[in-house]
Amino acid sequence: MTIVKTAAIQMKVWEDKFENITNLENYLIELSQKQVDLVILPEMFNCPYDTANFPIYAEKEGGAFWKEIAKLAQKYSMYLVAGSVPEKHHDKVYNTSYIFNPNGKQIGKHRKMHLFDIAVENGQTFKESDTLSSGNEVTVVETEFGKIGICICYDFRFPELARLMVDKGAEMIIVPGAFNMTTGPAHWRTLFQSRAIDNQVFTIGAAPSRDLDSSYLSWGHTLMVSPWGEILEEMEEKPGYIIQDIDLSQVTKTRTELPLLKHRRNDIYELKLK
Amino acid sequence: MTIVKTAAIQMKVWEDKFENITNLENYLIELSQKQVDLVILPEMFNCPYDTANFPIYAEKEGGAFWKEIAKLAQKYSMYLVAGSVPEKHHDKVYNTSYIFNPNGKQIGKHRKMHLFDIAVENGQTFKESDTLSSGNEVTVVETEFGKIGICICYDFRFPELARLMVDKGAEMIIVPGAFNMTTGPAHWRTLFQSRAIDNQVFTIGAAPSRDLDSSYLSWGHTLMVSPWGEILEEMEEKPGYIIQDIDLSQVTKTRTELPLLKHRRNDIYELKLK
Repeated sequence: MTIVKTAAIQMKVWEDKFENITNLENYLIELSQKQVDLVILPEMFNCPYDTANFPIYAEKEGGAFWKEIAKLAQKYSMYLVAGSVPEKHHDKVYNTSYIFNPNGKQIGKHRKMHLFDIAVENGQTFKESDTLSSGNEVTVVETEFGKIGICICYDFRFPELARLMVDKGAEMIIVPGAFNMTTGPAHWRTLFQSRAIDNQVFTIGAAPSRDLDSSYLSWGHTLMVSPWGEILEEMEEKPGYIIQDIDLSQVTKTRTELPLLKHRRNDIYELKLK
Repeated sequence: MTIVKTAAIQMKVWEDKFENITNLENYLIELSQKQVDLVILPEMFNCPYDTANFPIYAEKEGGAFWKEIAKLAQKYSMYLVAGSVPEKHHDKVYNTSYIFNPNGKQIGKHRKMHLFDIAVENGQTFKESDTLSSGNEVTVVETEFGKIGICICYDFRFPELARLMVDKGAEMIIVPGAFNMTTGPAHWRTLFQSRAIDNQVFTIGAAPSRDLDSSYLSWGHTLMVSPWGEILEEMEEKPGYIIQDIDLSQVTKTRTELPLLKHRRNDIYELKLK
Protein backbone atom coordinates (compact mmCIF):
# COMPACT_ATOMS: atom_id res chain seq x y z
CA MET A 1 0.00 0.00 0.00
CA THR A 2 1.17 3.46 -0.89
CA ILE A 3 -0.81 5.95 1.13
CA VAL A 4 -0.53 9.62 0.25
CA LYS A 5 -2.12 11.89 2.80
CA THR A 6 -3.53 14.50 0.46
CA ALA A 7 -5.19 17.84 1.14
CA ALA A 8 -6.96 20.16 -1.26
CA ILE A 9 -7.54 23.71 -0.11
CA GLN A 10 -10.55 25.70 -1.27
CA MET A 11 -8.95 29.09 -0.72
CA LYS A 12 -10.45 32.50 -0.84
CA VAL A 13 -8.55 34.60 -3.39
CA TRP A 14 -7.41 37.99 -2.08
CA GLU A 15 -6.82 40.98 -4.33
CA ASP A 16 -3.50 41.66 -2.64
CA LYS A 17 -1.28 39.03 -4.25
CA PHE A 18 0.90 38.36 -1.22
CA GLU A 19 -2.06 38.23 1.15
CA ASN A 20 -2.66 34.86 -0.55
CA ILE A 21 0.72 33.65 0.70
CA THR A 22 -0.14 34.62 4.28
CA ASN A 23 -3.47 32.86 3.95
CA LEU A 24 -1.78 29.78 2.46
CA GLU A 25 0.77 29.60 5.24
CA ASN A 26 -1.98 29.58 7.86
CA TYR A 27 -3.47 26.54 6.17
CA LEU A 28 -0.08 24.82 5.82
CA ILE A 29 0.67 25.21 9.52
CA GLU A 30 -2.52 23.29 10.27
CA LEU A 31 -1.96 20.70 7.54
CA SER A 32 1.62 20.01 8.59
CA GLN A 33 0.38 19.23 12.08
CA LYS A 34 -1.82 16.64 10.43
CA GLN A 35 1.20 15.15 8.61
CA VAL A 36 -0.11 15.85 5.14
CA ASP A 37 2.17 14.69 2.27
CA LEU A 38 0.64 16.54 -0.66
CA VAL A 39 -1.24 19.84 -0.82
CA ILE A 40 -3.25 21.07 -3.79
CA LEU A 41 -4.28 24.67 -4.37
CA PRO A 42 -6.93 26.18 -6.68
CA GLU A 43 -6.63 27.73 -10.11
CA MET A 44 -5.49 31.38 -10.07
CA PHE A 45 -5.17 31.37 -6.30
CA ASN A 46 -3.20 34.59 -6.28
CA CYS A 47 -5.27 36.59 -8.76
CA PRO A 48 -9.02 37.30 -8.83
CA TYR A 49 -10.27 35.43 -11.89
CA ASP A 50 -10.65 38.06 -14.59
CA THR A 51 -8.91 38.26 -17.96
CA ALA A 52 -7.90 41.86 -17.28
CA ASN A 53 -6.09 40.80 -14.10
CA PHE A 54 -3.90 38.10 -15.61
CA PRO A 55 -1.28 40.37 -17.24
CA ILE A 56 -1.23 42.63 -14.18
CA TYR A 57 -0.63 39.82 -11.67
CA ALA A 58 1.73 37.86 -13.93
CA GLU A 59 5.31 37.17 -12.83
CA LYS A 60 8.17 35.21 -14.31
CA GLU A 61 8.97 31.69 -13.16
CA GLY A 62 11.39 32.16 -10.28
CA GLY A 63 9.90 35.55 -9.45
CA ALA A 64 8.96 36.92 -6.02
CA PHE A 65 5.69 35.00 -5.69
CA TRP A 66 7.21 31.77 -7.01
CA LYS A 67 9.97 32.05 -4.40
CA GLU A 68 7.44 32.37 -1.60
CA ILE A 69 5.63 29.18 -2.64
CA ALA A 70 8.88 27.24 -3.01
CA LYS A 71 9.87 28.40 0.45
CA LEU A 72 6.58 27.23 1.97
CA ALA A 73 6.85 23.76 0.34
CA GLN A 74 10.29 23.41 1.91
CA LYS A 75 9.39 24.96 5.27
CA TYR A 76 6.45 22.60 5.77
CA SER A 77 8.09 19.72 3.90
CA MET A 78 5.22 18.88 1.57
CA TYR A 79 4.62 18.28 -2.09
CA LEU A 80 2.78 21.34 -3.28
CA VAL A 81 0.75 21.50 -6.47
CA ALA A 82 0.56 25.25 -6.38
CA GLY A 83 -2.81 25.62 -8.08
CA SER A 84 -2.16 28.07 -10.84
CA VAL A 85 -0.93 31.62 -11.20
CA PRO A 86 -0.43 33.93 -14.18
CA GLU A 87 3.07 33.35 -15.55
CA LYS A 88 4.85 35.96 -17.63
CA HIS A 89 7.23 34.67 -20.26
CA HIS A 90 8.63 37.10 -22.84
CA ASP A 91 5.56 38.99 -24.10
CA LYS A 92 3.11 36.22 -23.22
CA VAL A 93 1.04 35.31 -20.17
CA TYR A 94 0.21 31.71 -19.28
CA ASN A 95 -2.08 30.11 -16.73
CA THR A 96 0.57 28.00 -15.00
CA SER A 97 0.72 25.40 -12.27
CA TYR A 98 4.11 25.02 -10.55
CA ILE A 99 4.72 21.78 -8.69
CA PHE A 100 7.22 21.61 -5.82
CA ASN A 101 8.68 18.75 -3.80
CA PRO A 102 9.19 18.84 0.00
CA ASN A 103 12.66 20.33 -0.55
CA GLY A 104 11.12 23.31 -2.28
CA LYS A 105 12.46 22.21 -5.65
CA GLN A 106 10.21 22.67 -8.67
CA ILE A 107 9.63 19.21 -10.18
CA GLY A 108 7.38 20.28 -13.01
CA LYS A 109 5.02 22.89 -14.30
CA HIS A 110 1.91 22.85 -16.44
CA ARG A 111 0.72 25.64 -18.65
CA LYS A 112 -3.02 25.46 -19.34
CA MET A 113 -3.28 23.94 -22.78
CA HIS A 114 -6.94 24.56 -23.62
CA LEU A 115 -8.19 28.09 -23.13
CA PHE A 116 -11.72 28.68 -21.92
CA ASP A 117 -13.79 30.74 -24.35
CA ILE A 118 -17.50 30.34 -23.75
CA ALA A 119 -20.76 32.18 -24.42
CA VAL A 120 -23.77 30.33 -23.01
CA GLU A 121 -27.13 31.93 -23.87
CA ASN A 122 -28.42 33.65 -20.71
CA GLY A 123 -25.42 32.21 -18.87
CA GLN A 124 -21.70 32.63 -18.55
CA THR A 125 -19.54 34.51 -21.03
CA PHE A 126 -15.78 34.43 -20.66
CA LYS A 127 -12.84 34.63 -23.05
CA GLU A 128 -9.50 33.60 -21.58
CA SER A 129 -7.71 33.87 -24.90
CA ASP A 130 -8.13 37.67 -24.71
CA THR A 131 -5.08 37.85 -22.47
CA LEU A 132 -3.67 34.31 -22.12
CA SER A 133 -1.54 32.09 -24.33
CA SER A 134 -1.80 28.31 -24.23
CA GLY A 135 0.81 25.76 -23.19
CA ASN A 136 1.75 22.84 -25.39
CA GLU A 137 2.85 20.11 -22.99
CA VAL A 138 1.24 17.14 -21.29
CA THR A 139 2.40 17.27 -17.68
CA VAL A 140 3.15 14.26 -15.48
CA VAL A 141 5.51 14.62 -12.53
CA GLU A 142 7.45 12.00 -10.62
CA THR A 143 7.08 11.85 -6.85
CA GLU A 144 8.24 9.37 -4.24
CA PHE A 145 4.67 8.01 -4.31
CA GLY A 146 4.31 7.57 -8.04
CA LYS A 147 3.39 9.65 -11.04
CA ILE A 148 0.89 12.48 -10.93
CA GLY A 149 -0.73 14.20 -13.90
CA ILE A 150 -1.61 17.88 -13.67
CA CYS A 151 -3.90 19.90 -15.89
CA ILE A 152 -5.87 23.07 -15.35
CA CYS A 153 -9.66 23.47 -15.37
CA TYR A 154 -10.84 23.56 -19.00
CA ASP A 155 -8.00 21.16 -19.95
CA PHE A 156 -9.91 18.50 -18.03
CA ARG A 157 -12.84 18.66 -20.45
CA PHE A 158 -10.75 16.89 -23.07
CA PRO A 159 -10.67 13.13 -22.55
CA GLU A 160 -7.62 12.96 -24.82
CA LEU A 161 -5.45 14.81 -22.31
CA ALA A 162 -6.42 12.58 -19.37
CA ARG A 163 -5.63 9.52 -21.49
CA LEU A 164 -2.25 10.93 -22.48
CA MET A 165 -1.37 11.58 -18.84
CA VAL A 166 -2.36 8.03 -17.96
CA ASP A 167 -0.28 6.68 -20.83
CA LYS A 168 2.65 8.52 -19.27
CA GLY A 169 1.97 6.66 -16.03
CA ALA A 170 -0.26 9.00 -14.00
CA GLU A 171 -2.11 7.30 -11.15
CA MET A 172 -3.63 10.51 -9.90
CA ILE A 173 -4.84 13.48 -11.93
CA ILE A 174 -4.86 16.81 -10.16
CA VAL A 175 -6.90 19.68 -11.53
CA PRO A 176 -6.77 23.19 -10.13
CA GLY A 177 -10.01 24.57 -11.55
CA ALA A 178 -12.64 27.25 -11.22
CA PHE A 179 -15.86 26.18 -12.85
CA ASN A 180 -18.58 28.81 -12.79
CA MET A 181 -22.21 28.87 -11.65
CA THR A 182 -23.40 27.59 -15.06
CA THR A 183 -20.89 24.84 -15.84
CA GLY A 184 -20.21 23.91 -12.21
CA PRO A 185 -23.56 22.43 -11.24
CA ALA A 186 -23.98 20.96 -14.74
CA HIS A 187 -20.60 19.33 -15.29
CA TRP A 188 -17.96 19.57 -12.56
CA ARG A 189 -18.67 16.42 -10.56
CA THR A 190 -19.50 14.29 -13.62
CA LEU A 191 -16.18 15.17 -15.22
CA PHE A 192 -14.17 14.17 -12.17
CA GLN A 193 -16.09 10.93 -11.83
CA SER A 194 -15.94 10.01 -15.49
CA ARG A 195 -12.23 10.71 -15.96
CA ALA A 196 -11.60 8.62 -12.84
CA ILE A 197 -13.81 5.78 -14.13
CA ASP A 198 -12.45 5.81 -17.69
CA ASN A 199 -8.81 6.00 -16.68
CA GLN A 200 -8.94 4.25 -13.29
CA VAL A 201 -7.06 6.99 -11.53
CA PHE A 202 -7.75 9.20 -8.54
CA THR A 203 -9.00 12.61 -9.65
CA ILE A 204 -8.76 15.68 -7.45
CA GLY A 205 -10.17 19.09 -8.19
CA ALA A 206 -9.31 22.20 -6.17
CA ALA A 207 -11.34 25.37 -6.71
CA PRO A 208 -11.33 28.83 -5.14
CA SER A 209 -14.11 29.41 -2.63
CA ARG A 210 -17.06 31.45 -3.85
CA ASP A 211 -16.63 35.16 -3.35
CA LEU A 212 -19.88 37.03 -3.82
CA ASP A 213 -17.98 40.31 -4.29
CA SER A 214 -16.05 38.89 -7.22
CA SER A 215 -16.96 39.37 -10.90
CA TYR A 216 -16.45 35.63 -11.46
CA LEU A 217 -18.39 33.33 -9.14
CA SER A 218 -16.55 30.07 -8.53
CA TRP A 219 -18.63 26.93 -8.14
CA GLY A 220 -16.19 25.68 -5.49
CA HIS A 221 -16.93 22.00 -4.74
CA THR A 222 -13.30 20.95 -4.29
CA LEU A 223 -13.41 17.15 -4.40
CA MET A 224 -11.53 13.86 -4.50
CA VAL A 225 -12.71 10.82 -6.47
CA SER A 226 -11.51 7.20 -6.37
CA PRO A 227 -10.47 5.11 -9.41
CA TRP A 228 -13.88 3.41 -9.19
CA GLY A 229 -15.58 6.81 -9.51
CA GLU A 230 -16.67 7.18 -5.89
CA ILE A 231 -16.74 10.70 -4.45
CA LEU A 232 -14.42 10.38 -1.46
CA GLU A 233 -15.19 13.90 -0.34
CA GLU A 234 -16.71 17.02 -1.84
CA MET A 235 -16.98 20.51 -0.38
CA GLU A 236 -19.63 23.13 -0.97
CA GLU A 237 -18.68 26.74 -1.75
CA LYS A 238 -17.07 28.03 1.46
CA PRO A 239 -13.32 28.28 2.22
CA GLY A 240 -11.66 25.32 3.91
CA TYR A 241 -9.96 22.08 2.97
CA ILE A 242 -10.46 18.35 2.67
CA ILE A 243 -7.97 15.60 3.56
CA GLN A 244 -7.94 12.00 2.37
CA ASP A 245 -5.56 9.09 2.72
CA ILE A 246 -5.17 8.27 -0.96
CA ASP A 247 -4.26 4.60 -1.31
CA LEU A 248 -2.59 4.32 -4.70
CA SER A 249 -2.74 0.51 -4.62
CA GLN A 250 -6.44 0.94 -5.50
CA VAL A 251 -5.35 2.03 -8.95
CA THR A 252 -3.74 -1.33 -9.66
CA LYS A 253 -6.61 -3.21 -8.01
CA THR A 254 -9.20 -1.45 -10.15
CA ARG A 255 -7.19 -1.96 -13.33
CA THR A 256 -6.78 -5.65 -12.54
CA GLU A 257 -10.47 -6.26 -11.91
CA LEU A 258 -11.70 -4.32 -14.92
CA PRO A 259 -8.79 -4.03 -17.38
CA LEU A 260 -10.13 -1.04 -19.30
CA LEU A 261 -6.77 0.29 -20.39
CA LYS A 262 -5.71 -3.09 -21.74
CA HIS A 263 -9.05 -3.54 -23.49
CA ARG A 264 -8.57 -0.46 -25.65
CA ARG A 265 -8.58 -1.45 -29.30
CA ASN A 266 -5.18 -0.07 -30.18
CA ASP A 267 -5.31 -2.11 -33.37
CA ILE A 268 -8.30 -0.03 -34.53
CA TYR A 269 -7.69 3.46 -33.16
CA GLU A 270 -4.80 5.33 -31.70
CA LEU A 271 -4.40 8.46 -29.66
CA LYS A 272 -0.97 9.96 -29.78
CA LEU A 273 1.08 13.04 -29.29
CA LYS A 274 2.13 14.66 -32.53
CA MET B 1 -35.54 22.30 -35.42
CA THR B 2 -35.25 18.62 -36.18
CA ILE B 3 -37.37 16.71 -33.71
CA VAL B 4 -37.00 12.95 -33.54
CA LYS B 5 -39.67 11.28 -31.45
CA THR B 6 -37.55 8.58 -29.87
CA ALA B 7 -38.50 5.61 -27.72
CA ALA B 8 -36.24 3.23 -25.83
CA ILE B 9 -37.77 -0.02 -24.67
CA GLN B 10 -36.59 -1.76 -21.51
CA MET B 11 -37.73 -5.21 -22.57
CA LYS B 12 -37.89 -8.38 -20.61
CA VAL B 13 -35.84 -11.04 -22.40
CA TRP B 14 -37.67 -14.34 -22.94
CA GLU B 15 -35.90 -17.66 -23.30
CA ASP B 16 -37.98 -18.52 -26.33
CA LYS B 17 -36.27 -16.44 -29.00
CA PHE B 18 -39.38 -15.63 -31.02
CA GLU B 19 -41.42 -14.79 -27.94
CA ASN B 20 -39.26 -11.64 -27.95
CA ILE B 21 -40.66 -10.72 -31.36
CA THR B 22 -44.24 -11.06 -30.10
CA ASN B 23 -43.35 -8.96 -27.08
CA LEU B 24 -41.65 -6.36 -29.29
CA GLU B 25 -44.63 -6.13 -31.63
CA ASN B 26 -46.93 -5.38 -28.72
CA TYR B 27 -44.73 -2.43 -27.81
CA LEU B 28 -44.50 -1.25 -31.42
CA ILE B 29 -48.30 -1.20 -31.82
CA GLU B 30 -48.48 1.20 -28.88
CA LEU B 31 -45.50 3.29 -30.01
CA SER B 32 -46.79 3.65 -33.57
CA GLN B 33 -50.02 5.06 -32.18
CA LYS B 34 -47.84 7.67 -30.49
CA GLN B 35 -46.13 8.47 -33.82
CA VAL B 36 -42.68 7.47 -32.70
CA ASP B 37 -39.91 7.91 -35.33
CA LEU B 38 -37.11 5.88 -33.79
CA VAL B 39 -37.19 2.87 -31.48
CA ILE B 40 -34.22 1.50 -29.56
CA LEU B 41 -34.02 -1.99 -28.07
CA PRO B 42 -31.68 -3.45 -25.43
CA GLU B 43 -28.51 -5.49 -25.77
CA MET B 44 -29.13 -9.21 -26.38
CA PHE B 45 -32.87 -8.70 -26.39
CA ASN B 46 -33.50 -12.14 -27.89
CA CYS B 47 -31.10 -14.17 -25.77
CA PRO B 48 -30.76 -14.39 -21.97
CA TYR B 49 -27.38 -12.83 -21.25
CA ASP B 50 -25.01 -15.75 -20.70
CA THR B 51 -21.88 -16.64 -22.67
CA ALA B 52 -23.13 -20.21 -23.10
CA ASN B 53 -26.31 -18.94 -24.79
CA PHE B 54 -24.69 -16.78 -27.45
CA PRO B 55 -23.62 -19.57 -29.84
CA ILE B 56 -26.95 -21.39 -29.35
CA TYR B 57 -29.10 -18.34 -30.11
CA ALA B 58 -26.85 -17.04 -32.90
CA GLU B 59 -28.20 -16.69 -36.46
CA LYS B 60 -26.75 -15.32 -39.66
CA GLU B 61 -27.52 -11.81 -40.84
CA GLY B 62 -30.65 -12.16 -42.94
CA GLY B 63 -31.78 -15.20 -40.93
CA ALA B 64 -35.23 -15.92 -39.54
CA PHE B 65 -35.01 -13.58 -36.56
CA TRP B 66 -33.44 -10.79 -38.62
CA LYS B 67 -36.31 -11.06 -41.11
CA GLU B 68 -38.86 -10.64 -38.34
CA ILE B 69 -37.26 -7.45 -37.09
CA ALA B 70 -36.96 -6.03 -40.61
CA LYS B 71 -40.63 -6.79 -41.15
CA LEU B 72 -41.65 -5.00 -37.94
CA ALA B 73 -39.62 -1.88 -38.83
CA GLN B 74 -41.46 -1.75 -42.16
CA LYS B 75 -44.89 -2.68 -40.79
CA TYR B 76 -44.81 0.09 -38.19
CA SER B 77 -42.74 2.43 -40.34
CA MET B 78 -40.05 3.31 -37.81
CA TYR B 79 -36.31 3.47 -37.58
CA LEU B 80 -35.35 0.53 -35.43
CA VAL B 81 -32.01 0.19 -33.65
CA ALA B 82 -32.56 -3.46 -32.92
CA GLY B 83 -30.60 -3.64 -29.67
CA SER B 84 -28.26 -6.50 -30.19
CA VAL B 85 -28.49 -10.21 -30.93
CA PRO B 86 -25.89 -12.94 -31.34
CA GLU B 87 -24.80 -13.02 -34.98
CA LYS B 88 -23.24 -16.10 -36.54
CA HIS B 89 -20.71 -15.50 -39.29
CA HIS B 90 -18.62 -18.44 -40.53
CA ASP B 91 -17.32 -20.04 -37.35
CA LYS B 92 -17.59 -16.90 -35.24
CA VAL B 93 -20.28 -15.33 -33.08
CA TYR B 94 -20.63 -11.55 -32.69
CA ASN B 95 -22.73 -9.35 -30.44
CA THR B 96 -24.41 -7.37 -33.22
CA SER B 97 -26.80 -4.45 -33.53
CA TYR B 98 -28.77 -4.28 -36.79
CA ILE B 99 -30.25 -0.92 -37.71
CA PHE B 100 -33.31 -0.67 -39.98
CA ASN B 101 -35.07 2.22 -41.66
CA PRO B 102 -38.87 2.61 -41.85
CA ASN B 103 -38.86 0.63 -45.12
CA GLY B 104 -37.39 -2.35 -43.31
CA LYS B 105 -34.06 -1.91 -45.06
CA GLN B 106 -30.92 -2.48 -43.00
CA ILE B 107 -28.92 0.77 -43.03
CA GLY B 108 -26.04 -0.41 -40.88
CA LYS B 109 -24.87 -2.83 -38.28
CA HIS B 110 -22.46 -2.68 -35.40
CA ARG B 111 -20.52 -5.58 -33.99
CA LYS B 112 -19.45 -5.02 -30.40
CA MET B 113 -15.84 -3.97 -30.62
CA HIS B 114 -14.74 -4.22 -27.00
CA LEU B 115 -15.55 -7.46 -25.22
CA PHE B 116 -16.47 -7.42 -21.56
CA ASP B 117 -14.15 -9.51 -19.42
CA ILE B 118 -14.33 -8.57 -15.76
CA ALA B 119 -13.58 -10.03 -12.34
CA VAL B 120 -14.45 -7.63 -9.51
CA GLU B 121 -13.48 -8.89 -6.05
CA ASN B 122 -16.71 -9.97 -4.30
CA GLY B 123 -18.62 -8.67 -7.30
CA GLN B 124 -19.34 -9.52 -10.89
CA THR B 125 -17.35 -12.02 -12.94
CA PHE B 126 -18.07 -12.37 -16.65
CA LYS B 127 -16.01 -13.27 -19.71
CA GLU B 128 -17.66 -12.49 -23.04
CA SER B 129 -14.59 -13.46 -25.01
CA ASP B 130 -15.23 -17.09 -24.05
CA THR B 131 -17.76 -17.33 -26.86
CA LEU B 132 -17.79 -14.01 -28.72
CA SER B 133 -15.52 -12.41 -31.31
CA SER B 134 -15.11 -8.65 -31.57
CA GLY B 135 -16.07 -6.34 -34.42
CA ASN B 136 -13.62 -3.90 -35.94
CA GLU B 137 -15.73 -1.03 -37.24
CA VAL B 138 -16.87 2.33 -35.92
CA THR B 139 -20.58 2.55 -36.76
CA VAL B 140 -22.42 5.71 -37.75
CA VAL B 141 -25.62 5.47 -39.81
CA GLU B 142 -27.35 8.07 -41.93
CA THR B 143 -31.01 8.79 -41.29
CA GLU B 144 -33.38 11.43 -42.59
CA PHE B 145 -32.80 13.23 -39.26
CA GLY B 146 -29.03 13.17 -39.27
CA LYS B 147 -26.24 10.83 -38.30
CA ILE B 148 -26.47 8.39 -35.41
CA GLY B 149 -23.61 6.49 -33.80
CA ILE B 150 -24.21 3.03 -32.39
CA CYS B 151 -22.07 1.04 -30.01
CA ILE B 152 -22.82 -1.75 -27.59
CA CYS B 153 -22.48 -1.66 -23.79
CA TYR B 154 -18.78 -2.09 -22.91
CA ASP B 155 -17.83 -0.24 -26.12
CA PHE B 156 -19.19 2.87 -24.45
CA ARG B 157 -16.53 2.75 -21.75
CA PHE B 158 -13.92 3.86 -24.26
CA PRO B 159 -13.96 7.62 -24.83
CA GLU B 160 -12.01 7.07 -28.05
CA LEU B 161 -14.93 5.33 -29.72
CA ALA B 162 -17.44 8.04 -28.85
CA ARG B 163 -15.03 10.64 -30.23
CA LEU B 164 -14.56 8.71 -33.45
CA MET B 165 -18.33 8.46 -33.93
CA VAL B 166 -18.63 12.19 -33.38
CA ASP B 167 -15.84 12.85 -35.86
CA LYS B 168 -17.90 10.87 -38.37
CA GLY B 169 -20.81 13.25 -37.71
CA ALA B 170 -22.88 11.52 -35.01
CA GLU B 171 -25.30 13.85 -33.20
CA MET B 172 -26.80 11.06 -31.14
CA ILE B 173 -25.05 8.01 -29.69
CA ILE B 174 -27.23 4.99 -29.07
CA VAL B 175 -26.05 2.25 -26.76
CA PRO B 176 -27.88 -1.02 -26.27
CA GLY B 177 -26.35 -2.15 -23.00
CA ALA B 178 -26.76 -4.39 -20.00
CA PHE B 179 -24.71 -3.16 -17.10
CA ASN B 180 -24.84 -5.39 -14.04
CA MET B 181 -25.62 -4.81 -10.36
CA THR B 182 -21.97 -3.88 -9.64
CA THR B 183 -21.11 -1.62 -12.57
CA GLY B 184 -24.64 -0.28 -13.09
CA PRO B 185 -25.08 1.74 -9.91
CA ALA B 186 -21.39 2.75 -9.97
CA HIS B 187 -20.95 3.83 -13.59
CA TRP B 188 -23.95 3.63 -15.95
CA ARG B 189 -25.44 7.11 -15.53
CA THR B 190 -22.07 8.87 -15.24
CA LEU B 191 -20.91 7.36 -18.54
CA PHE B 192 -24.00 8.50 -20.42
CA GLN B 193 -23.73 11.97 -18.95
CA SER B 194 -20.01 12.35 -19.52
CA ARG B 195 -20.00 11.11 -23.12
CA ALA B 196 -22.87 13.53 -23.77
CA ILE B 197 -21.02 16.41 -22.10
CA ASP B 198 -17.64 15.72 -23.73
CA ASN B 199 -19.02 15.22 -27.22
CA GLN B 200 -22.11 17.42 -27.06
CA VAL B 201 -24.41 14.72 -28.39
CA PHE B 202 -27.57 13.07 -27.16
CA THR B 203 -26.79 9.72 -25.54
CA ILE B 204 -29.38 6.99 -25.17
CA GLY B 205 -28.95 3.71 -23.35
CA ALA B 206 -31.43 0.83 -23.60
CA ALA B 207 -31.10 -2.09 -21.19
CA PRO B 208 -33.10 -5.26 -20.59
CA SER B 209 -35.39 -5.13 -17.58
CA ARG B 210 -34.15 -6.92 -14.48
CA ASP B 211 -35.18 -10.55 -14.36
CA LEU B 212 -34.63 -12.03 -10.91
CA ASP B 213 -34.77 -15.55 -12.36
CA SER B 214 -31.87 -14.81 -14.70
CA SER B 215 -28.22 -15.69 -14.01
CA TYR B 216 -27.23 -12.17 -15.08
CA LEU B 217 -29.03 -9.33 -13.32
CA SER B 218 -29.41 -6.28 -15.54
CA TRP B 219 -29.19 -2.88 -13.89
CA GLY B 220 -31.87 -1.59 -16.28
CA HIS B 221 -32.07 2.21 -16.00
CA THR B 222 -32.74 2.85 -19.69
CA LEU B 223 -32.12 6.56 -20.13
CA MET B 224 -31.79 9.55 -22.45
CA VAL B 225 -29.34 12.41 -21.88
CA SER B 226 -29.08 15.82 -23.57
CA PRO B 227 -25.90 17.29 -25.14
CA TRP B 228 -25.58 19.43 -21.99
CA GLY B 229 -25.55 16.28 -19.86
CA GLU B 230 -29.06 16.57 -18.44
CA ILE B 231 -30.92 13.34 -17.76
CA LEU B 232 -34.05 13.77 -19.86
CA GLU B 233 -35.56 10.57 -18.52
CA GLU B 234 -34.31 7.49 -16.69
CA MET B 235 -36.17 4.30 -15.83
CA GLU B 236 -35.65 1.99 -12.88
CA GLU B 237 -35.47 -1.78 -13.38
CA LYS B 238 -38.96 -2.82 -14.53
CA PRO B 239 -40.08 -3.43 -18.14
CA GLY B 240 -41.54 -0.50 -20.06
CA TYR B 241 -40.38 2.32 -22.27
CA ILE B 242 -39.55 6.00 -22.34
CA ILE B 243 -40.30 8.50 -25.09
CA GLN B 244 -38.69 11.86 -25.73
CA ASP B 245 -38.88 14.47 -28.46
CA ILE B 246 -35.20 14.71 -29.25
CA ASP B 247 -34.46 18.15 -30.69
CA LEU B 248 -31.24 17.73 -32.65
CA SER B 249 -30.81 21.49 -33.03
CA GLN B 250 -29.65 21.41 -29.39
CA VAL B 251 -26.46 19.74 -30.58
CA THR B 252 -25.50 22.73 -32.70
CA LYS B 253 -26.62 25.17 -30.01
CA THR B 254 -24.47 23.47 -27.36
CA ARG B 255 -21.46 23.28 -29.67
CA THR B 256 -21.80 26.96 -30.53
CA GLU B 257 -22.00 28.12 -26.92
CA LEU B 258 -19.14 25.96 -25.68
CA PRO B 259 -17.05 24.95 -28.71
CA LEU B 260 -15.38 21.92 -27.11
CA LEU B 261 -14.83 20.02 -30.32
CA LYS B 262 -13.15 23.02 -31.95
CA HIS B 263 -11.04 23.64 -28.86
CA ARG B 264 -9.35 20.25 -29.07
CA ARG B 265 -5.62 20.72 -29.49
CA ASN B 266 -5.26 18.81 -32.72
CA ASP B 267 -1.85 20.38 -33.13
CA ILE B 268 -0.67 18.55 -29.99
CA TYR B 269 -2.53 15.24 -29.97
CA GLU B 270 -4.49 13.26 -32.46
CA LEU B 271 -6.96 10.40 -32.24
CA LYS B 272 -7.36 8.49 -35.42
CA LEU B 273 -8.44 5.25 -36.97
CA LYS B 274 -5.55 3.08 -38.04
